[in-house]
Amino acid sequence: MNLQTPRGTRDFMPQEMEMREKVFATVRKVYERYGFRPLETPAFEEMEILTAKCGEDVEKQIYKIGESSYGLRFDLTVPMARVVASDASLPKPFKRYAIGRVWRRDEPQKGRFREFWQADVDVVGSAGMLCDAEVIAAACDVLSELGFKGFEVRLNNRKLLDAMVEKAGVAKGKTGAAFRALDKIEKIGEEAVKEELKGKAGLGEKEIAAIMGFTKISGENGGKLEEIGKAVKGNARGEEGIAELKGIIELFGKYDVAKKCKLVVDFALVRGLDYYTGPIFEVKVSEGGVGSVAGGGRYDELIQLYGAPPTPATGISLGIERILEVMKGAKKDEKRRLVAVIAVKPEFRDYALKVVQEFRKAGIPAEPDLMERNLRKQLEYANSTGAGFVAVVGEKEMKAGTATLRDFASGKEETVAISDAVKKVKG
Amino acid sequence: MNLQTPRGTRDFMPQEMEMREKVFATVRKVYERYGFRPLETPAFEEMEILTAKCGEDVEKQIYKIGESSYGLRFDLTVPMARVVASDASLPKPFKRYAIGRVWRRDEPQKGRFREFWQADVDVVGSAGMLCDAEVIAAACDVLSELGFKGFEVRLNNRKLLDAMVEKAGVAKGKTGAAFRALDKIEKIGEEAVKEELKGKAGLGEKEIAAIMGFTKISGENGGKLEEIGKAVKGNARGEEGIAELKGIIELFGKYDVAKKCKLVVDFALVRGLDYYTGPIFEVKVSEGGVGSVAGGGRYDELIQLYGAPPTPATGISLGIERILEVMKGAKKDEKRRLVAVIAVKPEFRDYALKVVQEFRKAGIPAEPDLMERNLRKQLEYANSTGAGFVAVVGEKEMKAGTATLRDFASGKEETVAISDAVKKVKG
Repeated sequence: MNLQTPRGTRDFMPQEMEMREKVFATVRKVYERYGFRPLETPAFEEMEILTAKCGEDVEKQIYKIGESSYGLRFDLTVPMARVVASDASLPKPFKRYAIGRVWRRDEPQKGRFREFWQADVDVVGSAGMLCDAEVIAAACDVLSELGFKGFEVRLNNRKLLDAMVEKAGVAKGKTGAAFRALDKIEKIGEEAVKEELKGKAGLGEKEIAAIMGFTKISGENGGKLEEIGKAVKGNARGEEGIAELKGIIELFGKYDVAKKCKLVVDFALVRGLDYYTGPIFEVKVSEGGVGSVAGGGRYDELIQLYGAPPTPATGISLGIERILEVMKGAKKDEKRRLVAVIAVKPEFRDYALKVVQEFRKAGIPAEPDLMERNLRKQLEYANSTGAGFVAVVGEKEMKAGTATLRDFASGKEETVAISDAVKKVKG
Repeated sequence: MNLQTPRGTRDFMPQEMEMREKVFATVRKVYERYGFRPLETPAFEEMEILTAKCGEDVEKQIYKIGESSYGLRFDLTVPMARVVASDASLPKPFKRYAIGRVWRRDEPQKGRFREFWQADVDVVGSAGMLCDAEVIAAACDVLSELGFKGFEVRLNNRKLLDAMVEKAGVAKGKTGAAFRALDKIEKIGEEAVKEELKGKAGLGEKEIAAIMGFTKISGENGGKLEEIGKAVKGNARGEEGIAELKGIIELFGKYDVAKKCKLVVDFALVRGLDYYTGPIFEVKVSEGGVGSVAGGGRYDELIQLYGAPPTPATGISLGIERILEVMKGAKKDEKRRLVAVIAVKPEFRDYALKVVQEFRKAGIPAEPDLMERNLRKQLEYANSTGAGFVAVVGEKEMKAGTATLRDFASGKEETVAISDAVKKVKG
């Protein structure tokens, strides 16, 4: 029998899972601190819901459920859009977070899986740039709480991108392909992007030069926005896009977390998904060399696709897998907060059970031997599971109501009353 | 477009989701206190893994993934068995918990869904009855922490059930059908079970009378076990089953949580799954009238199906949906620990943002207005989202570095320094 997990999926063994749980708990805590509330939706949805605006690349990657019209969700935004559209009574802004699995039948590669987790936070029902600033700040605060020191937020705007390609003289039918090429600039480099703009997108030399010129505007954010402003002058959408970017930059500056964070306007940032309409953003960490660990943007036209009235919305998604990859690299093996209570002989088992329960009552993880093993084997097991403490009990301890507590971290061992042992482990 | 969730699946809106998260957090905390560690496996598995011993009823309910040999998992035990079988180096006992979604294409009905959550705890690698006592105690401790007052553990043993039907003279080929009939005794009543034993199972009058006689043995656990002991005397498996039950009863009695709990030997308890081999158990709560909220048992032969050496195991699964149903019934609407910071005019927005961040820094959920609304609308919104507090700021507050804090629960309102407002909300 084939015991491997399906291609592109993984088992998470306890040690790794404990780290994942910690990250999820931090995400939840920070998002809740920002006033976001959890929403959970089914793992699968009607295909017509999923494919309403996902783009053909993603559509090909959806896992379909046999003998039904359902497919596994490929992100958490589409199900949320369905929920909002189906319930007009939801107070606005609707602020929700969601942490969960999504599935894409993509070609698995290093750090990319077919089953992976997303952690999204979205504000629905407001067009104000304070919403965008809030979701970016929330994502940065999560990263900061997880111990990341250096991060950078890259910002662009779809309205401005539209204006750029228009000013460059690109025909309407070619803009999609042009954006897809531009999106790869960091992955494949400038020359390859030019090739693709020429080949796949079918752009002329002049158009390509104009677009590449825009992406090369350098300097501080203020100067960049001024220069692009001159370039797209008179294009209403472009000017709107610039005003939005200025709004986010001003508002984000009021957040404490902005001090730990570099905000960079990047005119080459596109982001793949079809549904963005305004500001788009990505967060990078300097640790671990994994690039972007969060990304999002405004999608003011997605929710109305599901029959709702026009409903502006913006959000950001944390790339949990990448974040964990960086954290795993930095992590050293730690002892667990667990007490293995060891009876030196079977006749002290009942006393050991009593000691176990005293620890548990104090909220400290504790376990008795479950295999009637000898002292040495019990110690070996405690070691293999990473227990931080053992409490050994024998005749002397049972009579005195004590336990011999060994702290593996310090190597210290002492025989103390059970209540004192509990205190010592509590620390 | 059809905006409903697929049949038998649900959206969980924020208020309900917050309660679910609380329950999951309690389950996790208690399981960890017992020394169990989290394991996560993919949502789908190879069909041959899933169908190895699930029984034909469950097999029919598996959602298949299109164009693949995969199916969505229907429980959390089978994937765990695969993990254990695939990694011989795992220290034993392997003690894991898992909380997650499972899927069965069952006929949806009140309280039964096609997508639902399970919360399992299992001990793998030990045949000792202390393991069974531990998992039962862990489940009871979860229920106790969740606020349930009265619960009852029903116990039986598959070895003893085998001995009972053998003593009743049931032919080997008919025992499965006989068990399936017996399993329904609480749902359909004694008479209907007799009908099914006669019809579907094809048993004779005498066999039926013998079986029904066993299930009617009454009295205290000790007396019941003595009486059934006489009935199956000489049947080795039956005697082993009785000894196991006695072992669990003795060991479970050493747990503090046993005081809150009635342990009842029930010779009619069967439990549906094919893979149980020894003790089986179910936990009922007296609140809410939902019957069993947890169930499990020993499955010493499941893991070797996946190519592992003989690996005894036992575990229990909490019926999260039923538990939540009872808790929802008992729950009253509560205010959230959230401060809505309200600027009386747009020019105080920056000061409001500063106040918001002071609350967040102290770990208190807080949010600014994201829609540039007037005071009345902001108050209405705070009310609709269940915020426990509003902090109103205007010119006076901004100049003095204060906020006017209103506690919705007490109705009290006072203008205090921001740091004092934070302290008041922290409580």
